[in-house]
Amino acid sequence: MELLIKPLQELADKFRALDGVGKKSSVKMAFSVLNMSEDDARAFAEAIISAKTKLGVCDICQNICEGKMCSICSSDTRDRSIICVVEDARGVMALEKVKEFNGLYQVLHVTISPMKGIGPDQLKIKELLARIESENVKEVIIATNPTVEGEATAMYISRLLKPFEIKVTRIANGLPVGADLEYADEVTLFRAIQGRRDI
Amino acid sequence: MELLIKPLQELADKFRALDGVGKKSSVKMAFSVLNMSEDDARAFAEAIISAKTKLGVCDICQNICEGKMCSICSSDTRDRSIICVVEDARGVMALEKVKEFNGLYQVLHVTISPMKGIGPDQLKIKELLARIESENVKEVIIATNPTVEGEATAMYISRLLKPFEIKVTRIANGLPVGADLEYADEVTLFRAIQGRRDI
Repeated sequence: MELLIKPLQELADKFRALDGVGKKSSVKMAFSVLNMSEDDARAFAEAIISAKTKLGVCDICQNICEGKMCSICSSDTRDRSIICVVEDARGVMALEKVKEFNGLYQVLHVTISPMKGIGPDQLKIKELLARIESENVKEVIIATNPTVEGEATAMYISRLLKPFEIKVTRIANGLPVGADLEYADEVTLFRAIQGRRDI
Repeated sequence: MELLIKPLQELADKFRALDGVGKKSSVKMAFSVLNMSEDDARAFAEAIISAKTKLGVCDICQNICEGKMCSICSSDTRDRSIICVVEDARGVMALEKVKEFNGLYQVLHVTISPMKGIGPDQLKIKELLARIESENVKEVIIATNPTVEGEATAMYISRLLKPFEIKVTRIANGLPVGADLEYADEVTLFRAIQGRRDI
């Protein structure tokens, strides 16, 4: 779709480059910006710069945070003997929403993906190994996504952690709550049967 | 959904304020910005400011443009005797894509909407009347959306143009191409029958 006006087209292209934004939505968003007040547009632009420049990663868990340590790692109430390994900061967010897990995290930022040319060497788990060596860690929960890359990464990490003789677990696969057996894919159903529990 | 980090939450809120962006998408977009290079983030912020500050409206048709006159009004190849009235710049874009219409436009920017407290006085059609008076306009096509507001605006404008003794037309209502009679709403079907043509 060609917009007649260059700055608007350029702005739409910027929106288009964001995750999950299509052609039509990007144009809609560009028009939204035009309908803002100039102050709002400037505040929007500043929010982008500010998010990009103010945020870094936590020295301990590599989660995205302001400053040197994230609020989870610096909290007194968290169980420091359990570390949950997630792919990215969104994984932390998702788990924090559930409020079931009270340990610490380790954010990998990448997963093993031969397709993208990412090998095990590029995983940032040196920090995890250092933490296990220096702190009294009793369990590592591997909560990478149940995708090909996530599973490969989980396998790799679990093997790497074997020598430490700590408990290493993987989050369960199975049917999502509210789902229907009829519509579940075969792999999920297979895993659900394998992972069956006494009731 | 609460993000742990303030600048990220603030950025997500800015995205949320855009047309058609939901909670989850806004968070996804905020994370996309974090994954950009700092240069890209700055270019994004500048595109917002630039779209907002560089663009104004065309002196003639009120369409969004850079400078004082839009590319359509300043073109030599357009038929200046037909003016198509649309609600907003997106209407111009949609019609330009079709390449069927070669006249000029008049962009209203608002439609009559008692619900939003917008009366006929707030419509910017003085410019349209001035153009009809001063130029050799033969036809005005009213292409406001077929919504309650768009229809009310179309009726109002058509009455206003009666004294000028020029051709005033309204774009057709009917079934969209590829649609199914069974699923068409009654009003559309009624209009489709009313607007039937010889074949």
